[in-house]
Amino acid sequence: MSHSASYSAFLDRLGGVNDLLNALSILQWDSRTMMPPGGVMSRARQIATLLGAAREKLLSDETRRVVDAAMAEVSKLPAEAAERRSVEQTVAAIAFHERIPAALQTERAELKTIANAAWIKARADSDFAAFAPYLERVVDLARRTADAIGYADHPYDALVAIYEPGETKRSLDALFGELRRGIGPILAKVLAAPEPKADFLERHFPRDRQFAVARRLAETIGYDFQRGRLDDTVHPFEISFTRDDVRITTRFYENYLPPSVFGALHEAGHGIYEQGVDPVYTRSPLATDLVGWYAVGGTSFGAHESQSRLYENHVGRSRRFWELHFGVLRDAFPEALADVDAEAFFRAVNRIRPGLIRVEADELTYDYHIMLRVEIEAALMDGSLKVADLPAVWNETIRRELGVAVPDDRRGVLQDIHWSTCQIGTFCNYTIGNVMAAQLFERALSDEPAIAARLQGGDYEPLRSWLAHHVHQHGRRYGRDELLVKATGRPLDPKPYIAYLGRKYGEVYGFGG
Amino acid sequence: MSHSASYSAFLDRLGGVNDLLNALSILQWDSRTMMPPGGVMSRARQIATLLGAAREKLLSDETRRVVDAAMAEVSKLPAEAAERRSVEQTVAAIAFHERIPAALQTERAELKTIANAAWIKARADSDFAAFAPYLERVVDLARRTADAIGYADHPYDALVAIYEPGETKRSLDALFGELRRGIGPILAKVLAAPEPKADFLERHFPRDRQFAVARRLAETIGYDFQRGRLDDTVHPFEISFTRDDVRITTRFYENYLPPSVFGALHEAGHGIYEQGVDPVYTRSPLATDLVGWYAVGGTSFGAHESQSRLYENHVGRSRRFWELHFGVLRDAFPEALADVDAEAFFRAVNRIRPGLIRVEADELTYDYHIMLRVEIEAALMDGSLKVADLPAVWNETIRRELGVAVPDDRRGVLQDIHWSTCQIGTFCNYTIGNVMAAQLFERALSDEPAIAARLQGGDYEPLRSWLAHHVHQHGRRYGRDELLVKATGRPLDPKPYIAYLGRKYGEVYGFGG
Repeated sequence: MSHSASYSAFLDRLGGVNDLLNALSILQWDSRTMMPPGGVMSRARQIATLLGAAREKLLSDETRRVVDAAMAEVSKLPAEAAERRSVEQTVAAIAFHERIPAALQTERAELKTIANAAWIKARADSDFAAFAPYLERVVDLARRTADAIGYADHPYDALVAIYEPGETKRSLDALFGELRRGIGPILAKVLAAPEPKADFLERHFPRDRQFAVARRLAETIGYDFQRGRLDDTVHPFEISFTRDDVRITTRFYENYLPPSVFGALHEAGHGIYEQGVDPVYTRSPLATDLVGWYAVGGTSFGAHESQSRLYENHVGRSRRFWELHFGVLRDAFPEALADVDAEAFFRAVNRIRPGLIRVEADELTYDYHIMLRVEIEAALMDGSLKVADLPAVWNETIRRELGVAVPDDRRGVLQDIHWSTCQIGTFCNYTIGNVMAAQLFERALSDEPAIAARLQGGDYEPLRSWLAHHVHQHGRRYGRDELLVKATGRPLDPKPYIAYLGRKYGEVYGFGG
Repeated sequence: MSHSASYSAFLDRLGGVNDLLNALSILQWDSRTMMPPGGVMSRARQIATLLGAAREKLLSDETRRVVDAAMAEVSKLPAEAAERRSVEQTVAAIAFHERIPAALQTERAELKTIANAAWIKARADSDFAAFAPYLERVVDLARRTADAIGYADHPYDALVAIYEPGETKRSLDALFGELRRGIGPILAKVLAAPEPKADFLERHFPRDRQFAVARRLAETIGYDFQRGRLDDTVHPFEISFTRDDVRITTRFYENYLPPSVFGALHEAGHGIYEQGVDPVYTRSPLATDLVGWYAVGGTSFGAHESQSRLYENHVGRSRRFWELHFGVLRDAFPEALADVDAEAFFRAVNRIRPGLIRVEADELTYDYHIMLRVEIEAALMDGSLKVADLPAVWNETIRRELGVAVPDDRRGVLQDIHWSTCQIGTFCNYTIGNVMAAQLFERALSDEPAIAARLQGGDYEPLRSWLAHHVHQHGRRYGRDELLVKATGRPLDPKPYIAYLGRKYGEVYGFGG
C-alpha cells in the first residue's frame, strides 16, 4: 500500500504510540511470567512512565498536527475506508482523553494501589467491611469519571463504552432478560438430570506432560508458535506485541486436568485473533486501543472473548473434538486415564454444577455470575445500591439464581480483583463474548458447509480461515456490531447462544435439545 | 534522604529517562531469551521508539529547565556530593548528545542493519572482501562521529571515552606495553611446560544438571535470586532493570562443561555489581549511563568487567574454590567425573592453549586478542591502516604473538560482531577489567585479612561486602580511576595483574611464581 505523505506521517507518529503500548505489554507479560519478586516496585514505575509517554505522545501538538493533516485528506475517502477509520478513531481517542482531567488520572492511579492492597487483606480476612470504605471511593471516582466522559442516559454507560462500545445499561438489561429466560429452563432440566461422572479429572497429571498436551492442542486449533509462546501463570492470559509476537499462558494443577487444557484453548482463541489481524494494520490505530491504552487488534473486549470462547467451548468442549483428540490425553496420562474413554471425558468436562466462584463456573452458570456483577455495578453507579448493602444483595442473588449459599465474603463479594483496581464496566464482555461466539460459529457453519465437514476430520483451518476473513483481519476497523452485521447479517443476538446451550446440554445430559 | 524541590523535580524527570532505558533493556533481554522468531522486526521498531523517547526526554526543554534549576542548587555542595555529581553528569551527557548531529545517528542506525547483515554473510562465506566496503563505511562514520564528539590527541580517544572515560590511545599503548612485557615471559614458561590433562571436560554433562550447578554456584558467590534469574542463551550476558531485577544468562554445551560454569560465575559477577548499587541511586543518573544509553549502575565498562572477571577468575578458577565445590560437580555428574578430583579439575580449567577465537581464549592469551583489536581500531581511525590490509595484519599478529596460523577470515578478522554494529572503541574494556580485577582483589585481601580466611572456608560474603563498600554501592558517582584511588590508593595499575598471573600459572604449571 502506498500512502500520501500526510497519511504516512500520521502512521509514523501513531506507530510510535503503538510501540510504546507494546513495550508496556512486554513489561506486563514479563512481570507476570518471568520477573523475580524483587522487581515489583521498579516495574510499576517503568509501566507508569511508558503509559505517560504514550499519553503525552498521543495528546502532543505534533500528533494533533499530523492528525489534522491526515484528516483533511482521508475525509474524502469512503466512510468505511481503513485509512479514514484509522484517523477518525484517533480523533475520537484524543477527544476522549481530553475530557478526563489529569487530576482524575492521578487520583485513579493512587487509589488503585491502596484499594488493591486493602482488598488483598480484606479478602484474606474475608472481611467486606474493611474493604467497603475503599470501594466507596472507587465508586465515587467512577461516577466523576463517567461525568467527565459524558453519557446520555445512565452513568454506567460512559464506563461500559470504554470496554464494549455500543452497550449501555439499557441494552444489557434487555440482553440479560433474554438470557435468563433462555438459559433458566435449560439449567433447570440439567439440574434435574443425573450428573456425569467426573472424578477421574482429579487424578494425578504430571505438569510437564500437561504442558506438552496444552501446547499440542493450541497448535492443533491454529495458534502459531512461530509468532507465539506458551507459559505457566497463576491466572491464564493472552497478550500481544503486534500480530507477530502473541503470547499465551495457562495454569497447571497436577491433581485436576481441565484448567490447563481449556485455559490453553481459550487463550489460543484470543491469540489466533491477534495473529490474524491484517499485517497492513501493524502499528496503526487499527491495531491499537487508544482509549483503553492497549496495543491490541481486537475490536472490543467482547469480540475478543468471542474468539476465546468459540475455541474453548464450541470447538474444545465438543464431542467430536475429544473423539479425535482423547488419544493425545491417553498417551500423555496412560495411568490416570486408563479406564476413561472419549465420551466419558466429553461428558465430564461439560458437567454443570452451580458454584460460588466465577472463574470456576461452567457454561450454563457463568453468565449468572456476570449478570450479578453488571447489575450491581450499574446500581452502585446510579446510587440505587449502597456499598454497605452489597454483600446482602450478592448472597441473596446467588442463592436465588444458582441455589448456592455463600458462606463468606471471600467466596462472595470479595472474590474478584476488578473493583479494587478501579475497573468498573468490564464484566459484560464475558457474556457478550459467549453470545457472539455462538452467533459467529453458527454462521460459519451455515455459510460454508465444508467447515463442519473438515472439523469432523480434525482440520481446523477452514474455520480459522472463515474467522480470519470475517473477524480477525479487520482489527479495529469495524465496531463490534458493524462486524457482526457484516459477518452474520445482524447485530448481537442471543438466540444462537441459547439454542446452542439447549442442544449441547441435551446432548451431554441426554434430554434432547 | 530529603531533597529540595528543585532537586526532586530533577530526579523525577531523570527517573523517567531511567525507566525508559530500563524498559528498553527488558525488551532486549526478552528478545534474546524469550521472543518467538516472528517477533524480530516489530521488536526492532519498539526498541528504536523507546530509545527515541529517552533521547527526546533527555534533550527536551523541560529537562534542561529542571537541570538548570538543580544545578544552581547543587553547585553549592562539595565537589564529590552525590547530588552534584548526578546533575553534572546529566549536563555532560546533554552536551555530548548535542554534539552528535541527528543525521549521524540516523546514518549509524541504518548502517548497523546493513553492515551486520553483510558481516553475517561474509563470515559464513569466510570472505573478508565482501565485508570490506561496509567496514570502510563504518570506519568513515566512526571518524566523523569522533570529529563531532571532539578529541585532543587522537580520533580514537573520542570513541574510547564513551565506554571507558579516561582512557586514550596513548594510555592504552602504555598499558599494553607493560602487559606484553609482563605476560610474555609467563606465557613462554607455560608453553614450555607439560599441559595439564583436560579431556574429561569433554564428556557428557546433561543440560538440566548443568543448569542446577550454575544456579547453585552463582548463589554461592552472592548473586541474589530474589532480585535475579538465570536463563540459557547462545551468548551469555547480564542485564539489569534497576538493582532489584538483575538477570544473567549462561550457555550450556552437553559435551563441554566449562562454559556454563564459568559463564554463570562471570555474569553473576556483573550481576552482583548491579545488585549492590546504593538503593538511593535507583532511577537516578548515578544508575544511568546517559551517554551510552543504558540503565546501569556500573561506572565504566571496564569497571563492570572487573567484577565479572574477579568472580570468574580470582574466585572461580582458584584451587580453593574447587577444593570446596568440586563435590557439587561430582554429585551432579557422577559418571562423567568419576575419575577426576578437585586438583585435576582446577588444573584443567586453567589450561593455557593459544587459539584463534577471542571468546574461547584462556587467561594468559585473552589480552593478546584484545590488544590486537584495539591497535587495529586505532590505526583504522587515524588512517595508518587501510581496511584492505586488515586480514594480513591480523593474521601476522596472531602468528607472531600466539604462534597460531589463521586458516580463514571466519576464524580471524571476521570473528567478532562489534564492527558490523558500528561499535568501535569497546574492546579495551575487557583487558581493563582483567587489570582492575587483580588490583581490587589484591587490595581487598590486604585490606581485610578476614576476607582471605573466610574465602578459605567458602564464605564469600566478606569479599562481596568489601566490593559493595568500595565499588558497587557508588554506582556511577565516581569515575573509574577515582574509584580505584579511593579503593586501592592508586589509579589503574597492571602490576597486581601480572603478579597474579605469574603466581597462578606457576601454581598450575608447577614452575613457581
